[in-house]
Amino acid sequence: MLKKKNTYVVAVVGATGTVGKELVEILKERGFPVGELVPLASERSEGEKIACMGRNWTVKRLTKESFRNVDIAFFSAGASRSFEFVPAAVEAGAVAIDNSSAFRMDPKVPLVVPEVNAHAIARHTGIIANPSGAIVGLVLGMNPIHAAARITRIVVTTFQSVSGAGRNAIHELAQQTVSLLNFRDLEKNVHLHQIAFNCIPHIGVFVDNGSTREETNIANETRKIMEDDSISVAATAVSVPVFRGHSESVNIETGKKVSANEVRAILSAAPGVVVYDDPSKNIYPLAIDVVGKDATYVGRIREDGSVANGISLWLVSDNIRKGAALNMVQIAENLIQEKRAAETRISGG
Amino acid sequence: MLKKKNTYVVAVVGATGTVGKELVEILKERGFPVGELVPLASERSEGEKIACMGRNWTVKRLTKESFRNVDIAFFSAGASRSFEFVPAAVEAGAVAIDNSSAFRMDPKVPLVVPEVNAHAIARHTGIIANPSGAIVGLVLGMNPIHAAARITRIVVTTFQSVSGAGRNAIHELAQQTVSLLNFRDLEKNVHLHQIAFNCIPHIGVFVDNGSTREETNIANETRKIMEDDSISVAATAVSVPVFRGHSESVNIETGKKVSANEVRAILSAAPGVVVYDDPSKNIYPLAIDVVGKDATYVGRIREDGSVANGISLWLVSDNIRKGAALNMVQIAENLIQEKRAAETRISGG
Repeated sequence: MLKKKNTYVVAVVGATGTVGKELVEILKERGFPVGELVPLASERSEGEKIACMGRNWTVKRLTKESFRNVDIAFFSAGASRSFEFVPAAVEAGAVAIDNSSAFRMDPKVPLVVPEVNAHAIARHTGIIANPSGAIVGLVLGMNPIHAAARITRIVVTTFQSVSGAGRNAIHELAQQTVSLLNFRDLEKNVHLHQIAFNCIPHIGVFVDNGSTREETNIANETRKIMEDDSISVAATAVSVPVFRGHSESVNIETGKKVSANEVRAILSAAPGVVVYDDPSKNIYPLAIDVVGKDATYVGRIREDGSVANGISLWLVSDNIRKGAALNMVQIAENLIQEKRAAETRISGG
Repeated sequence: MLKKKNTYVVAVVGATGTVGKELVEILKERGFPVGELVPLASERSEGEKIACMGRNWTVKRLTKESFRNVDIAFFSAGASRSFEFVPAAVEAGAVAIDNSSAFRMDPKVPLVVPEVNAHAIARHTGIIANPSGAIVGLVLGMNPIHAAARITRIVVTTFQSVSGAGRNAIHELAQQTVSLLNFRDLEKNVHLHQIAFNCIPHIGVFVDNGSTREETNIANETRKIMEDDSISVAATAVSVPVFRGHSESVNIETGKKVSANEVRAILSAAPGVVVYDDPSKNIYPLAIDVVGKDATYVGRIREDGSVANGISLWLVSDNIRKGAALNMVQIAENLIQEKRAAETRISGG
């Protein structure tokens, strides 16, 4: 689908959002072969300028005609826009890399964290989905342990920053904080309840079994990316008054006994993971420290004696960067390499 | 030890602290028979006045001679002060109700949440310990389920407010928040790392197995209060930027299968617990809503299919009130009743 080129026409849907902006920065940082940037957004942002590859590109209003000549279309503008516009992008010949929940569990759509299942990219039919922010970090930490010791069950509680809910949620936390410190009334628009100085155990809508959509996503997406439906997952997803960086308290049970030191060794060798774990020096990952970092950081690794083969750990990653923008760009990089490798193989054969 | 009286001489060690102040308020609210209040604190607070029973009582400096004629001595001034001064209080004939960690795991000292193990009060030999704030709420929620369905394992992750670390920690969160919003440098005195807009998986010192003291306390105190060493507990204790109210994400496994509705019914009938659980109306407990409340609130009750008999829930309580001051006063109320009942029985015999 994607032709081999020296440079690509790259559309970014949601270009003025938190993830969209980060994505353009990452394209620049990593020298992605952007020939032309097509920043797309809602009417409100039309006309804004976005700098990339030494030029200013004008933000245009997203329509179904936006994707002419586009090779790669990054989507990060919510599920309803993806449902509406991803098919138009694919129809126009682009590969859509979608950060919304719209297609994540579609069996025809690969759901990809390149360090874990890059091979799944090859079977795409126009759409590749990016997992929710909390899941990218989780599978990066879980997959290497699973390969070594077979994870049978994961009990995870997330501490999710407001940036996972977008730019307005970030503003809301700041505004509510200022209001509270000045004894003024609160405004609530994005979060259902006060998020400043509070924790809310509710991300996404509630589904029938009493879980939230985010919690069922954590279970389902984890199994899909790790390609093993035998892994049991119990998730509780909580919004915390943190601007950026998702933290996760993870307890796992494994088929094979592994020690905390073995887990440290396994994760130290794993791509995209940094073991940051020295209690004697008060070293463990913190949300404020991972902002802008590519890796997922793991610490507080310890054996859990409450079960036969138990391990507890604490995992933190930048939900906007590796949880979204960086992972999307890495998928695109793999797509190009995959394409190039495939064409090399064909021409070589 | 405690003589039957119409009113009691009550000492409050740490009278000007967060818990001490709340405790005096609760004595007043509940009409505790205070004949004389002896507020004690460090030199810094000497001379401050505390209103109670229509009088102003002058804060005095804590010394080993402070406990003459004292009947009940509430301690909430940290473990080192309790180690030093609780024996003096007991020697002087007082019963010490201690909110520090000093004596909690001492086999001679009852560790009490009255709704769970009031009977343990009777075997005290001068000291009764109050559990850590995160544990009072936890056992209030767990004990009724254990009685009905035998809990075999608890996996708990706490979201602990800074008030658990005292008045200076509260100020630190406020100060750091203001500094960050004004782009000023942060001061760190109480927390090892920035707590504003951050979550820190480190409460208490680290112990040998890679857990923190708070995490091992959660396991050990839960078993001691519930009087069942067969319950396995895996805990992760996390400080969050919330002023007051501890939230806990709890996953349990039971010997007997219970449904979410059965758990709701069990907890609705349990003393000290309020079931606050209606996802269809976005109703679940929140830290900001429980401040000043006596009960522990439980919501997000759902079956966890990742294990044979699994239940997940979300539990929130006011760590200063029920987690400390109120529970201490309830212990004292039980002590008085216990004493009165015992003496009635003796005189009646």
